Amino acid sequence: MQGERSVLPRGTTPQADSSTTRNHDGAAFSARLAGLSAGRLGRGLAALVDALDGLVRDLRLTPAEFRQVLDYLTEVGHAADARRQEWVLLADALGLSMLVEDLNTPRPAGCTPNTVAGPFYRADAPLRDNGGSISLDGAGVHLQVRGRVLALDGTALPGAWVEVWQANGQGQYENQEPDLQPENNLRGRLKADGQGRFAFRSVMPGGYALPSDGPVGRLMTRLGLCLARPAHIHFRVSAEGYQRLTTHIFDRDDPAIGRDAIFGVKPELLAEFRAVPMDGGAMGRALDLDLVLCPLRQG
Amino acid sequence: MQGERSVLPRGTTPQADSSTTRNHDGAAFSARLAGLSAGRLGRGLAALVDALDGLVRDLRLTPAEFRQVLDYLTEVGHAADARRQEWVLLADALGLSMLVEDLNTPRPAGCTPNTVAGPFYRADAPLRDNGGSISLDGAGVHLQVRGRVLALDGTALPGAWVEVWQANGQGQYENQEPDLQPENNLRGRLKADGQGRFAFRSVMPGGYALPSDGPVGRLMTRLGLCLARPAHIHFRVSAEGYQRLTTHIFDRDDPAIGRDAIFGVKPELLAEFRAVPMDGGAMGRALDLDLVLCPLRQG
Repeated sequence: MQGERSVLPRGTTPQADSSTTRNHDGAAFSARLAGLSAGRLGRGLAALVDALDGLVRDLRLTPAEFRQVLDYLTEVGHAADARRQEWVLLADALGLSMLVEDLNTPRPAGCTPNTVAGPFYRADAPLRDNGGSISLDGAGVHLQVRGRVLALDGTALPGAWVEVWQANGQGQYENQEPDLQPENNLRGRLKADGQGRFAFRSVMPGGYALPSDGPVGRLMTRLGLCLARPAHIHFRVSAEGYQRLTTHIFDRDDPAIGRDAIFGVKPELLAEFRAVPMDGGAMGRALDLDLVLCPLRQG
Repeated sequence: MQGERSVLPRGTTPQADSSTTRNHDGAAFSARLAGLSAGRLGRGLAALVDALDGLVRDLRLTPAEFRQVLDYLTEVGHAADARRQEWVLLADALGLSMLVEDLNTPRPAGCTPNTVAGPFYRADAPLRDNGGSISLDGAGVHLQVRGRVLALDGTALPGAWVEVWQANGQGQYENQEPDLQPENNLRGRLKADGQGRFAFRSVMPGGYALPSDGPVGRLMTRLGLCLARPAHIHFRVSAEGYQRLTTHIFDRDDPAIGRDAIFGVKPELLAEFRAVPMDGGAMGRALDLDLVLCPLRQG
């Protein structure tokens, strides 16, 4: 057993199979996938792993940090349950959800930009009279919304369907607090009139914050990032021959307007919720807006 | 409400706050972090999000695919519990665990390379006599292991501690089947002699496969990737003044040697498990190996 200096396990094959010699000189995983017909999933995963590989090298990630990353993923995974989608929240908070939305719904200048629908949308919202109220409890500062659904050339789109949903003055959606708000409070579906006009009475929405009690909230807080979402109203508008629009209209005067936690704010989506005297003398708010749809792509 | 063509919500501020205009022209998240003193965590996360941002763009990820990614992360998260660390498995199967190991334990040529310890290591393995057996049930093909612990210049390292652990012939570690194998079967701690020599009797380890019943196994299988781990014995060697070595020694003749599911195989770690006649006439195996330690870095 003694004798000449030996630096390899005795019995080592001098010429090892070259497929075994890849020693993380880069892209071990993608090199292995390259020989397979793994399709778009395989190409995507290979690109992801290459990117992570580069990141681990650039950052010189330590084993302790790597464990922290895996521990964090474990925490996020355990926070995600039937009622709470912490992964969606993470994707939102990193700006990735809006990026996917932007990439997949490009709109020519002049059309109202799309945003994510978010977790509070309900497809089963009740029909409301055009001009009627969507506030079932009347709680909050009264708001009168008047809008038009238009094509890019300014043509009105008669009979367009307008879905609307929003938080109450405390920044809570009805499906977040079913014991406190009437079902379908502050949401509804309206049909625009023959000139593409719609109107509804509501209350001023409050801004709110993403949940701070889970791994995503804790991470953002630790980084000094804000969880705030500036006050907004969601719209989804459908008209035959046009791309469906899903968007937010934001209160431009909300103090958090420059730091929406999910990167949904765009200049085209800022609006003034004007202070106006209401019947009876109290002050309310008024919002006028145009929602501009983009024609369906041909072919 | 009718009148001039309007493409913006009425009430839109003509010059919006420039901090709100970032429209995923790249790096929205890292731009926001840049203004904060978020330290290494912030820099790392910004780099990660930039990499993911680039990936989403390059792949032109669709909303449906993005949802599939989030659904997959949700699945992995739900598969991870107190007994099963699916995130570690994912990191292993993507080659990232070995990459982190490689980056953090660089060894000069001639020193035995480090690998991950893996999930089956036990720090409390019992002391065994140098030359004795670590097989408590005697089940399997007999294997005689003889090794030396050396410095890079060939000097023996007397009294080095050698920890060893391995699967049985069916590819099962004792802590995977506590009802079938005696506790601490096929593992132990030995003290090398005055010439750095160690020896033990064991049985030939079997190769095995990563679990195929979870999200990681299903993904790899769908991609056509192999879950196999070629047969190996784990060693962890400690000697004063030297970096601790944690490694695998692989059976170079294992059919899966070129496609270890966790990318642990390196040419320096291939060894021949020689067929030899044993006492009594049956055929057994013999493994001779040198484990070469690297001096502790100074300062």
